[in-house]
Amino acid sequence: MNNFTFFSPTKFVFGRGVESRTGGLCKQFGGTKVLLVYGGGSVVKSGLLSRVEASLTEAGIKYVEFGGIQPNPIDTKVYEGIELVRKEGIDFILPVGGGSAIDTAKAIAVGVPYNGDFWDFYVGKAKVTSALPVATVLTIPAAGSEGSGDSVITKIDGMNKLGLGSEHMRPKFSIMNPEITMTLPANQTAYGIVDMMAHIFERYFTNTRDVEVTDRVAEGLLIAIINEAKKVMADPMNYEARANIMWSGTIAHNGLCGVGRQEDWMTHCMEHEVSGLNDKVAHGAGLAVIFPAWMTFMAKHNPYKGAQLAERVFGIEAKGTEEERALKGIEKLKEFFVGTLKMPKTLRELGFEAKDIDELVRKFHQNNGETVEGVYYTMTKEVTRAIYEIAL
Amino acid sequence: MNNFTFFSPTKFVFGRGVESRTGGLCKQFGGTKVLLVYGGGSVVKSGLLSRVEASLTEAGIKYVEFGGIQPNPIDTKVYEGIELVRKEGIDFILPVGGGSAIDTAKAIAVGVPYNGDFWDFYVGKAKVTSALPVATVLTIPAAGSEGSGDSVITKIDGMNKLGLGSEHMRPKFSIMNPEITMTLPANQTAYGIVDMMAHIFERYFTNTRDVEVTDRVAEGLLIAIINEAKKVMADPMNYEARANIMWSGTIAHNGLCGVGRQEDWMTHCMEHEVSGLNDKVAHGAGLAVIFPAWMTFMAKHNPYKGAQLAERVFGIEAKGTEEERALKGIEKLKEFFVGTLKMPKTLRELGFEAKDIDELVRKFHQNNGETVEGVYYTMTKEVTRAIYEIAL
Repeated sequence: MNNFTFFSPTKFVFGRGVESRTGGLCKQFGGTKVLLVYGGGSVVKSGLLSRVEASLTEAGIKYVEFGGIQPNPIDTKVYEGIELVRKEGIDFILPVGGGSAIDTAKAIAVGVPYNGDFWDFYVGKAKVTSALPVATVLTIPAAGSEGSGDSVITKIDGMNKLGLGSEHMRPKFSIMNPEITMTLPANQTAYGIVDMMAHIFERYFTNTRDVEVTDRVAEGLLIAIINEAKKVMADPMNYEARANIMWSGTIAHNGLCGVGRQEDWMTHCMEHEVSGLNDKVAHGAGLAVIFPAWMTFMAKHNPYKGAQLAERVFGIEAKGTEEERALKGIEKLKEFFVGTLKMPKTLRELGFEAKDIDELVRKFHQNNGETVEGVYYTMTKEVTRAIYEIAL
Repeated sequence: MNNFTFFSPTKFVFGRGVESRTGGLCKQFGGTKVLLVYGGGSVVKSGLLSRVEASLTEAGIKYVEFGGIQPNPIDTKVYEGIELVRKEGIDFILPVGGGSAIDTAKAIAVGVPYNGDFWDFYVGKAKVTSALPVATVLTIPAAGSEGSGDSVITKIDGMNKLGLGSEHMRPKFSIMNPEITMTLPANQTAYGIVDMMAHIFERYFTNTRDVEVTDRVAEGLLIAIINEAKKVMADPMNYEARANIMWSGTIAHNGLCGVGRQEDWMTHCMEHEVSGLNDKVAHGAGLAVIFPAWMTFMAKHNPYKGAQLAERVFGIEAKGTEEERALKGIEKLKEFFVGTLKMPKTLRELGFEAKDIDELVRKFHQNNGETVEGVYYTMTKEVTRAIYEIAL
C-alpha cells in the first residue's frame, strides 16, 4: 500500500425532500449571492429549480440563473459564466444538475479569481490556488462530481476534452434527493451507472499490491451497483434502488476506492477522445464500449486484477489461467452493459469507422504524451491502437 | 434507506513516516500551542513522541506534555487536562495514542470552553456547541476515534462509562503510520481488530431495509479485516497487513457504514457495563464475549441480518432456516475470535460470575433506560439478562 492522504470534506445531505435545505446550507457556508448553473428544461419542468430558489429566498440569499449547459460541457459557457459572476458580484456557485453543470460550475469557480485564461489550469500551464465556494444539487448519479475535486471541460476550438483536479473545487455540500432521479430517461440512468462503475474500475486496476481493504470495498460497491441497477432498469420508480445507485455514484468517486494505490484512468482518457471527436456520444456510452475492450487487452497483457474482478464480483470459478478467468468476467460485464443497460457494444455503433482510429490515437497521445507510464499497462501508440481496434 | 447526512471532514495522512508532517498540519489548522495527550511509556520508548515534538518545534509550535492516560479513560484526567489547558493558554489538543488518549483529548477539548462540568455533556445535561480543535497521531487501530466525533469516558465515582457524539469533536486531521503498530503486543492488536469489527456489526445489524450499498461495503470491510488479521497475527511485522488493518479501523467508524440506516450499539452499551465494573477488562475482550452472545440471541429472535452476514462474509451456504444460517455464521466468528485472535469466550473468563449479572443488567438499564426501543431488537431487562446469560 502506498502512502496517501484522504480528505473528503463535502457534507452530503441525502434523501427525500432535502433540496429544501439548500438555502440554509448556502448561508452556513458563507454564500450571499449565488450563481445557479443548470442545463436544459428538466430542472425547470420538474419544479426542482423553483424549490431550490424558494429555499434560497427563504434564507435571504440572492441568486442569478445561468442555464443552457450541454452534456460534454464546453469552455464558451465557462467564459460566459465567469463574466456574469464578476459583473454580478456573485460569491457562491451552485450547480443544479449532473456532471456537466457541476463541472462547468467548478471551472467558473476557479476561473473567477484568476487573472488569466481558466483553460490554463486544464492544460497544466497554471496551478489552482483559490476558487469561489461550490456546492451542488445533484440530479444525475454518474460523474461523482458532487463529491470530487475534478472537472472535465471540452475546448470547442480543437475539440479538446481535458480534466482538472484540485481540492479547491471540492463541493462544500451536496444535496442528493433520489426522488429527482426517478424520472431520468432509461439511457441517462444507464450511462450514469456505467460511469460510476468505470470510476471504480479506473482505481481497481492497479499494480499496487496488498490493497485488500480498498479492493474489497470496491468489489462490494460494484456488486451493489449491479444488483440495484437491475432493479432500477426494471422499475425506474423504485426509490430504494435509486437511492442505492445515487449514493454508490458518490462513493465510487470521492477518493475512497483509490487510497494507497496507483490509479489508471486510461480508459477515461481514451473515451474523452471518442466523445471529444463526436459530441453526440454520451460519456457513459463511450465508456461501455472502451472499458471491455481495454480489459480484453489487459486480460492478455496484465490479467491479475481482471481475474480477481471476475472471481469476486462476477462469481467466476477460480480455475484455469488468469487470462481465462479475466475473459469470462469481461463476458459477464458485457452481458450486463448490453443486456441490462442496453449500452452499445462497439465504436461502429457510436458512428466511428476503422479510418477514425488514426485520429483517436493521435489525439490521445497529443493530450497524454507519447508514452504514458506509471499506469496499469504502459500506453504506447501501438497499445492505444490495439485497444481502439478491439473496441471497433 | 433513511434520509441521512454524511460529513467526514477529517484529513487522513497515512503511511510510513507521516508523523514528520504533524507540525505543518497543526500550523495549517491554526494551532500555536499544543497539548500532547498520551498514555504510558510506549510512545516515549518508541521515539514517536520525540519525533512528533521535533516536528512541532520545526513548525514553530509550542507544546505541553500531558501523559498517563490509562485504558478505559477516566474523568479525573479530563478535569486535570482542562485545568492545564486553561492555565497554559493552549489552543490545540493533540493526542498521540489510541482511543483512550484520543477520547480524553476530545473530552478536554469540549470541556475547556464550557463553564460547567464537562460530564454534563456525557449525561445529556448539556449540548456541545464549541470545542478546541483536536487532531490525532494514532498508535492503535481499534476505536476509530481518529475519524469519528465520538468519545467514551468512565466517571470513577460510580464507575459509569458513557459515550458522547458531537461534530465539534471530529479530528481536523489524523496521522496514521502503520509502522508504529508493528510493535503492538498481540493482545492489543487483537482487541483492536475485535473493536473495529464490532463498529461495523453495530451498524450492519439494522431493521432498515434496502441498504444494499452500505451492506456490501460493510461486508467487504469485514472480509478484508478477517483476511488481514490472520496475516498480522501470524506475522506482526507485516507492514502491508498492518496498513490494511489500520485503514479498516478508520472506515469502520467514520460513519460510512451507518449511512441511511438505524444503528444498534446495544452490544457496546452492554460491554461498557462489563469493563465499567471491571476495568481490567479490555474493551475488545468484552466485545469478543458479548457480540457472539448478542448475535446468538438475535439468531432466534431477529435472524435476518445474521443470516446475511453468515452467507456473505463467512461463506455459509444459503440453505436451511435463517436461524440455522445465522448460528453457523456465529460459529465461524467465534472460531476467528478464539482461534485466530486468542480472545476469551465467556464472561467467566473475564472474572464474572452468575451473581454479577443482576448488577450488569441494572447498570445497563440505569444508563440506557428501562426499555431501549428503535434498535435491532427492543432491549428489556429480560432481553439484556438473557444475552448476559448466554455470554456467561
